[in-house]
Amino acid sequence: MTSPRSTAFFEGLTISDNFESRKLEVDEFTTRHAGLGNRIVLITSGGTTVPLESRTVRFIDNFSIGTRGATSAEYFLKQGYAVLFLHRHRSLQPFHHRVNKNILDVLSVEESNGTTIKVQAPFVASLVPVVQQYHHYHDSGMLCQVDFTTLEEYLLLLRAACHALQVFEKSAIIYLAAAVSDFYIPAGQLPEHKIQSSGGKLQLSLEMTPKMLKPLVKEWAPQAFTVSFKLETDPELLVSKAKGALETYQHQMVIANLLHTRKREVVMITMDMEEKVSLTDEDLDSGKEIEEPLIAKLVAIHREMLS
Amino acid sequence: MTSPRSTAFFEGLTISDNFESRKLEVDEFTTRHAGLGNRIVLITSGGTTVPLESRTVRFIDNFSIGTRGATSAEYFLKQGYAVLFLHRHRSLQPFHHRVNKNILDVLSVEESNGTTIKVQAPFVASLVPVVQQYHHYHDSGMLCQVDFTTLEEYLLLLRAACHALQVFEKSAIIYLAAAVSDFYIPAGQLPEHKIQSSGGKLQLSLEMTPKMLKPLVKEWAPQAFTVSFKLETDPELLVSKAKGALETYQHQMVIANLLHTRKREVVMITMDMEEKVSLTDEDLDSGKEIEEPLIAKLVAIHREMLS
Repeated sequence: MTSPRSTAFFEGLTISDNFESRKLEVDEFTTRHAGLGNRIVLITSGGTTVPLESRTVRFIDNFSIGTRGATSAEYFLKQGYAVLFLHRHRSLQPFHHRVNKNILDVLSVEESNGTTIKVQAPFVASLVPVVQQYHHYHDSGMLCQVDFTTLEEYLLLLRAACHALQVFEKSAIIYLAAAVSDFYIPAGQLPEHKIQSSGGKLQLSLEMTPKMLKPLVKEWAPQAFTVSFKLETDPELLVSKAKGALETYQHQMVIANLLHTRKREVVMITMDMEEKVSLTDEDLDSGKEIEEPLIAKLVAIHREMLS
Repeated sequence: MTSPRSTAFFEGLTISDNFESRKLEVDEFTTRHAGLGNRIVLITSGGTTVPLESRTVRFIDNFSIGTRGATSAEYFLKQGYAVLFLHRHRSLQPFHHRVNKNILDVLSVEESNGTTIKVQAPFVASLVPVVQQYHHYHDSGMLCQVDFTTLEEYLLLLRAACHALQVFEKSAIIYLAAAVSDFYIPAGQLPEHKIQSSGGKLQLSLEMTPKMLKPLVKEWAPQAFTVSFKLETDPELLVSKAKGALETYQHQMVIANLLHTRKREVVMITMDMEEKVSLTDEDLDSGKEIEEPLIAKLVAIHREMLS
């Protein structure tokens, strides 16, 4: 049963203009892959915003450019999963985040045999696999990218995507890598115009966002293999908070990580086990990414559960 | 004389690790162009963040991806100005923001005469001027891009850049297009770790950021032609607030614009005049940008003042 709190919360949300078209995209993608008998992962990535005004100039944001989500998406694709990538607008995208920060530095206009624009020779070798993999996974229809900005958009899309995954039963993973706002200002309490900065102090009162993991596990996608993340800055709270979350929400796994070591160490925690995945200095120097062993282990656990 | 408030504010700021290297870059750029006798513009662009924790997971941000700043930079370059582009990390960059959102869609790997990566034919014509102009202005050393993220970083770099502009006397424009936080939490009041989301509500108390336009005009760069922006959502407040700012800060120009019409209409306001710059529907359909006539008029006013 949905808790009264989350039901009331959803009833108060504003459905944005482009929600229906995004939902259609999700439905088309999931229907197609269910028909093909593919396994699927829903990845959420990037931070959500909480507006401080209804015509938004200011907002509260969560630190996340989406590295974990974008990188994980690639390793899930390589493991044969269809990837529904629900991401913050303008956050990092699979493959694209590996392109040189300023692509214009590496492009040249050439005038032999008509005008062409080429990637300069020294950059070709590193970019070839990026371009090829991007086209391979896009052309094969294995990747669907849907974006959100606000907490409201995120939650409405997440619920719609979870519903669409039900047809996969146990073959779906839900990988909640987005950094979701814990607090929000209810729409009815937002001033319409930009807050006027006079009178000295700005007092903000935010309410806790209802924990959507509860309805997600119980109703939206009860058969999926659901993975949440715990990002903390205080190492003493990390594992205890992760275990507490598992007990409270009854989902399948928490991946715990610390803000300052998140690229070299994560801990996978289920009801039955606690396994550290880490990279050595040499791994990091050679360009290895923690998401590679992490996704490999996660997929192995999912496969075992399915068999 | 600096007001006691802004002095105390600056003394409380944390200088980030990379401040000195950025300041050196600014000094090298300004010294070189002063030696060449060039006119210069300092453009600030994008929003600033205000951390809610000292090891930042959450922050307050201002809506701005930096379109105005990035586009204006290009038109200043075309008018012969050296451009010091002080921008929010990952905000839009001159020329680069005109590249297709996902460059990977338009790149292909080709295997004739060795491996090359090319822009696909249908996209060449529109990208050629972007690539050529980017390389032209970068190779000629007319553009210097320096980034910031937090309000603190922004203010420290702004002050350093203004000091570096003093040698230009009246030949410098300061074009303050960044969306700067009006409120902040003093460093001493920040919790070290991520705010724990228990106990229901989050009460935040923010203090007003001291108005740096006052010391900027009086001390940091008193001879520069300083332009500030007023972005409002309420049309009734717009012009009166712009005029009030001119009287308070005694700078040269306010460019006033409304959030929802800012791409088609701005008003240039000085002590002597108020001039609307606007685009027609046909202008917008043909891809014309409001920054083109805006910068042309601004440069004409600056030239007249110099002669």
